[in-house]
Amino acid sequence: MTEFTPQNPDYRDVVAASFARQGLMQALGIELAEVGPGRCVLVAARDLRLLQQHGYFHGALIGAMLDSAGGYAAYSLMPPGSEVLTTEYKVNFLAAADGERLVVRGKVVKPGRTLTVCTAEAFCERGGMERLCAVMLQSLIRVPLEP
Amino acid sequence: MTEFTPQNPDYRDVVAASFARQGLMQALGIELAEVGPGRCVLVAARDLRLLQQHGYFHGALIGAMLDSAGGYAAYSLMPPGSEVLTTEYKVNFLAAADGERLVVRGKVVKPGRTLTVCTAEAFCERGGMERLCAVMLQSLIRVPLEP
Amino acid sequence: MTEFTPQNPDYRDVVAASFARQGLMQALGIELAEVGPGRCVLVAARDLRLLQQHGYFHGALIGAMLDSAGGYAAYSLMPPGSEVLTTEYKVNFLAAADGERLVVRGKVVKPGRTLTVCTAEAFCERGGMERLCAVMLQSLIRVPLEP
Amino acid sequence: MTEFTPQNPDYRDVVAASFARQGLMQALGIELAEVGPGRCVLVAARDLRLLQQHGYFHGALIGAMLDSAGGYAAYSLMPPGSEVLTTEYKVNFLAAADGERLVVRGKVVKPGRTLTVCTAEAFCERGGMERLCAVMLQSLIRVPLEP
Repeated sequence: MTEFTPQNPDYRDVVAASFARQGLMQALGIELAEVGPGRCVLVAARDLRLLQQHGYFHGALIGAMLDSAGGYAAYSLMPPGSEVLTTEYKVNFLAAADGERLVVRGKVVKPGRTLTVCTAEAFCERGGMERLCAVMLQSLIRVPLEP
Repeated sequence: MTEFTPQNPDYRDVVAASFARQGLMQALGIELAEVGPGRCVLVAARDLRLLQQHGYFHGALIGAMLDSAGGYAAYSLMPPGSEVLTTEYKVNFLAAADGERLVVRGKVVKPGRTLTVCTAEAFCERGGMERLCAVMLQSLIRVPLEP
Repeated sequence: MTEFTPQNPDYRDVVAASFARQGLMQALGIELAEVGPGRCVLVAARDLRLLQQHGYFHGALIGAMLDSAGGYAAYSLMPPGSEVLTTEYKVNFLAAADGERLVVRGKVVKPGRTLTVCTAEAFCERGGMERLCAVMLQSLIRVPLEP
Repeated sequence: MTEFTPQNPDYRDVVAASFARQGLMQALGIELAEVGPGRCVLVAARDLRLLQQHGYFHGALIGAMLDSAGGYAAYSLMPPGSEVLTTEYKVNFLAAADGERLVVRGKVVKPGRTLTVCTAEAFCERGGMERLCAVMLQSLIRVPLEP
């Protein structure tokens, strides 16, 4: 895996602070489990609010977590004073997300001054085994933080 | 616009019943505003839970509504005894979703026995004007309903 | 359909000149049939080089024409001194492209100073009837022309 | 990387025979460099016909090779008597493809009875170094071969 060098030495704090302001993530009980340079892991524990009618994790939740995991992976490589916006993403759903925990890993494929491209994978844990249930490919744009 | 002929005369009731079982849509206050053959409109009113940190409708909400609007558009053309699953979708975000209501219109581009392709558009209403803020392109697969 | 105002009064000539420099398009006999503000139509006549093993227009040709039609639609709205590059696109194939001519129509969905989003549709003509065989959703970035 | 078990012991011959029938690949001088279970590598050497106006490998070529590399990766896992069709793909372009050779690696992410999902990466070789210049995410459908 490519190793990236963060431009902001405080990237972990910056990512954690931004995540803490995401009311939706908090409301759904999603946890920021890990941040590295160009990497981010989000985790959701099984909860009735997060499931669809068959008892699997809801596709809308999976899409939102994939998008966020890619977004924070990109954000970890931004220089100070930046914001990052998703311009587009594509998700392929591979298997029913049936299990106790959803673990979503985002990583940067190509950082850029303007555009960054990320991928993310969603794994569902069941009985200690992880199963890949969705993959994402995403573009993000850096915007200077308004003072 | 292409006109489609529904295979299930009760398609409106079938779509409405399925939507009513979607706990997430209900929890977020999303309304099924309109259903036609190969068409579906969902509406969300501005609500603090649905916004991101700048006060715009959240990207995760927009993605979920685009996916659902396309899904119900596809479902309206299915024969009785069918379920429909999203296999993949792509969203492009075009503008900040700043306004009082989010109106999401899904439609079928190509129905099929196995795969159906849909598009959906998300418009944000502000002061009586609609502004296009996101577009989606999606594939769905029909699966026979298990008895 | 949204009407766009070109920023370059000579946009037709600029698009035609760029298209004429595209060796691949010329080599494959693809014709620039129409250009308007935010719109572009490309046409290919049936030719053995353009078909796959079953005698249909090749998917690679369809992808290339969709990408180019969107690209020139975007280019028509650029200010003088600009180039445009595709950053990403997605194609859904809907039906076998069986016919005498392939007609590909690209249009701008959302122009922007940096990013422009386009869609394009590929129609196959057979016996005077057009059939939609592929749809595309695409992002493009404007880059200043190097002197 | 996941290891897959081919369902057809002759998968290498079947893939090679299908590739040899692809007139377009032959005409462009693209080589099938490697096939494994769920994997495929295609290579193109620099050639004037394959370049765009700045002397880089053409985006249309990159798209076609990504699509084909994913397609043959999927095909390698199909049971005898199958054909495979791309239903959709998405490409992100990451860097100008400036170099002597284009090496495109496709792999299966999730095989399925009906749908298979693949990714592919395009690398450009220059002075002995490989640079990632595009990534793809793709869906394919298996269709029984007509007798």
